[in-house]
Amino acid sequence: MVDVAEKSMEELVSLCKRRGFVYPASEIYGGINGFWDYGPLGVALKNAVRDDWWRNMVECPPVGPDGDVLQVVGLDSSIIQNPKTWEASGHVGGFNDPMVDCTESKKRYRADHAWVVGFHGGEEDADSNSSSGVVPEHFYAVVADSKETAIEAAKSEMPKKFAKRVADATAVTAFDQTNLAPDWPRLSPATQTATLTEPRMFNLMFETYVGAIRDEDAKAYLRPETAQGIFLNYKNILDTMRVKVPFGIAQVGKAFRNEVTPRNFIFRSREFEQMEMEWFCHPDDALKWYDFWKHERMRWWKSLGIDEGNLIFRDHDEDELAHYSSACVDVEYRYPFTAPGYGELEGIAHRGCYDLSKHTEHSKQKLEFFDQTNNEKFVPHVIEPASGLTRGVLVLLCEAFTPTPERKGSKYVMNFPARLAPIKVGVFPLVNKDGMPEKANALYMKLREKYVCQYDVKQSIGKRYARMDEAGTPYCVTVDGETNENGNVTIRHRDTAEQEQVHIDRVEEFLGEKLG
Amino acid sequence: MVDVAEKSMEELVSLCKRRGFVYPASEIYGGINGFWDYGPLGVALKNAVRDDWWRNMVECPPVGPDGDVLQVVGLDSSIIQNPKTWEASGHVGGFNDPMVDCTESKKRYRADHAWVVGFHGGEEDADSNSSSGVVPEHFYAVVADSKETAIEAAKSEMPKKFAKRVADATAVTAFDQTNLAPDWPRLSPATQTATLTEPRMFNLMFETYVGAIRDEDAKAYLRPETAQGIFLNYKNILDTMRVKVPFGIAQVGKAFRNEVTPRNFIFRSREFEQMEMEWFCHPDDALKWYDFWKHERMRWWKSLGIDEGNLIFRDHDEDELAHYSSACVDVEYRYPFTAPGYGELEGIAHRGCYDLSKHTEHSKQKLEFFDQTNNEKFVPHVIEPASGLTRGVLVLLCEAFTPTPERKGSKYVMNFPARLAPIKVGVFPLVNKDGMPEKANALYMKLREKYVCQYDVKQSIGKRYARMDEAGTPYCVTVDGETNENGNVTIRHRDTAEQEQVHIDRVEEFLGEKLG
Repeated sequence: MVDVAEKSMEELVSLCKRRGFVYPASEIYGGINGFWDYGPLGVALKNAVRDDWWRNMVECPPVGPDGDVLQVVGLDSSIIQNPKTWEASGHVGGFNDPMVDCTESKKRYRADHAWVVGFHGGEEDADSNSSSGVVPEHFYAVVADSKETAIEAAKSEMPKKFAKRVADATAVTAFDQTNLAPDWPRLSPATQTATLTEPRMFNLMFETYVGAIRDEDAKAYLRPETAQGIFLNYKNILDTMRVKVPFGIAQVGKAFRNEVTPRNFIFRSREFEQMEMEWFCHPDDALKWYDFWKHERMRWWKSLGIDEGNLIFRDHDEDELAHYSSACVDVEYRYPFTAPGYGELEGIAHRGCYDLSKHTEHSKQKLEFFDQTNNEKFVPHVIEPASGLTRGVLVLLCEAFTPTPERKGSKYVMNFPARLAPIKVGVFPLVNKDGMPEKANALYMKLREKYVCQYDVKQSIGKRYARMDEAGTPYCVTVDGETNENGNVTIRHRDTAEQEQVHIDRVEEFLGEKLG
Repeated sequence: MVDVAEKSMEELVSLCKRRGFVYPASEIYGGINGFWDYGPLGVALKNAVRDDWWRNMVECPPVGPDGDVLQVVGLDSSIIQNPKTWEASGHVGGFNDPMVDCTESKKRYRADHAWVVGFHGGEEDADSNSSSGVVPEHFYAVVADSKETAIEAAKSEMPKKFAKRVADATAVTAFDQTNLAPDWPRLSPATQTATLTEPRMFNLMFETYVGAIRDEDAKAYLRPETAQGIFLNYKNILDTMRVKVPFGIAQVGKAFRNEVTPRNFIFRSREFEQMEMEWFCHPDDALKWYDFWKHERMRWWKSLGIDEGNLIFRDHDEDELAHYSSACVDVEYRYPFTAPGYGELEGIAHRGCYDLSKHTEHSKQKLEFFDQTNNEKFVPHVIEPASGLTRGVLVLLCEAFTPTPERKGSKYVMNFPARLAPIKVGVFPLVNKDGMPEKANALYMKLREKYVCQYDVKQSIGKRYARMDEAGTPYCVTVDGETNENGNVTIRHRDTAEQEQVHIDRVEEFLGEKLG
């Protein structure tokens, strides 16, 4: 197994484009920063993750700690909702990043991505007014996306003779910036000079206008999360679906955040897909359910074949928690760009009664639950397992991506679990003659009723295998000379490149055993 | 079978909310006009239609007129694309509706939804200056969403004494309006007086800004159709997926249109879902493929169990066609609100090389195809079967909705084809004692591995059947007194309300035969 830290994101991104997993959006127009399109194999992989989550969350939900099947219902709410939704949820007031504007270039940067770059003077500085001859240090605070950019910007600002003397840059947070010495220049990456405004907050929600008139009343937002659509429907579902607390509402769908610095491929994009479930329960049971969902969600990620060593829990520190939240834990994955560290994949949050209370306050609707058995009325507490579908796709891509320098023909293998693989079976005639295409095509026509298959006659069999290795196709079936003689076809296993002979009439049975 | 024309949209909309198919979006905040949320049963139905389309279009595409399996690949492109996309496609310049503004209320209306309301005078009008004593007719041109609103507006403008003498309103088109007598008042529905501007064009795309700065360069659009995302990826897919012309690219996804007058439930909403496929072919073969897809798409809609009598083709007239299009046909359905007429469900359009040529012009990228066999380079022509997924859901709801006054207990039955039904099987203990819940629950635990099941113990068995009838659940299995005696359960058929006894060990086999 190849360690994630050894995997190159650059090579993975290149393979993703080459094999039709992920393309940059609007590429013929030079792209659009933060948006990606899922190609033929990418959409198949994404659908497989989505369907597995939906199956395990909604259609056949888990058995709970008490041995009963949990009640979870599905939902698909609008991306655009009444804007009061986002006032109640706090997104209009608070969903902000600190930003600085460059007054000259009109570009905007995240103020919390700032770097302090230090310079050590040298003998060239001998004519300085330092009495001891020991050269003072110079500091620059630079707002930039990366350490490298910060150092470059600081260098160009310093007199040439000092530029070689750059010490290491240190990241500072937005908070720390206020403690920067005020005379340190704050350089704009665009102009390389001190043309930045003071930091101010910038809302991450995309705005639009609904209806004919463009005024404040018509302003609406693209949802920055699917969760609020669930809270909006809590009452309708309680009133119509015969559920009682505890129960869950789940949905999968797109969400949008106007990220200032989208980055790391599809890890942080401006349009992405979420899989969220809100679990409504009695306040006294909330911690029990928090614990249940925490472990259930980890179990599910592992069920996708992700190596346990690449997944960890990270409990949020007290000071990371929202004021209404009493606990939050992330499932993190060791991405190539975070290794040896980990990055977020899913968050399981104990949200208390915050959302339902806020919506009650703003909508004047009662969002309670009346427990007939105990004659008790209460506002349910909520446990929220919220994961990124597109981030899950990234994890599967990272996990499956395996350089295979030892294998001739295939430079990489994508070893997806068979049930998630975009193409299940490749069907090939060894050569395009001698009755082989007819036999292979007949087999393909039979198999495609059950599995997503790819029929391919072009180029050498080695090249066809190599393509299927990069597509992550677990099995290839080749009709060859032997098929004409004794009816046997060659089945090749993606992960080992081993081949075995199976009678053509037994291929369906063979695949049934392997693919289920 | 109940004729569609006899079905009440009001009753259907009410059932859709009561049973969790479709809720008004943001209902606790008074809603948001033109947006709908799909509840637990609605999302299941929508997913079933989506998956059937995807299966038949992408995973197991049809066999073409030449006997070969067609090449179709899937895609999931971004909702937000580089804005140049929509300049090239013509949507920025031309995706417009004629609108009039009410100068007083600031409301905006579609100018092409205008009605002429006629009044007949009577003896009350005897003091008029009509020399013959025969009272002249009065006409009002009213801009309004419906005939009723138009008549109301005209009435309130007329002197009270004439108000009873309203003749029927007649719809006029935007074009015809220019021929209205200039002295007929054009009344605003908001003020009931002549406070409307002249008609002008209004773009239907939702706008937003991407990135930090809000200027013209940052302006972007929510896609008004999924089709353009396909044209944007034509080159990437051609370069990476080893397809050759003819081939198709298919996608399912949300689209947004800032409709001025969203109406007819989910028929015309501002956020909706499309299923579109672009079929790229040789110009000489385009008409052959147009004909093929026209019939294939009708075949598919019928395969969903829609009555043939409610589906028709409607060829677009010459003057309806876009200038670049040489043919377009709609698959229309007889909705309750169009009956006895029909309304659009899917359009199959011959788009020629319009889109690829426009994107070539605007992107400077060559979007051709080189046919190695014939050594010929050409820009493919495109046949586009474009349907509404959410509109398909509406059709299935209308089609399945069956008032059953003859049935005691169930006022309505939703007779979806079993394979599309949101819940496949209801599992009930007749009473919540005598070992029945244990047996029923054990059966439920087994069946839920294969089918979406609902377990329910509450209220009388008749009420449980009635709920399942409205949910469209084809089979209910009840564990009753006989189960304890001889192991038989009662299976009830939704469509006939007939019941039969089946041994509990044979239920899986029974359902396997019925549900596949």
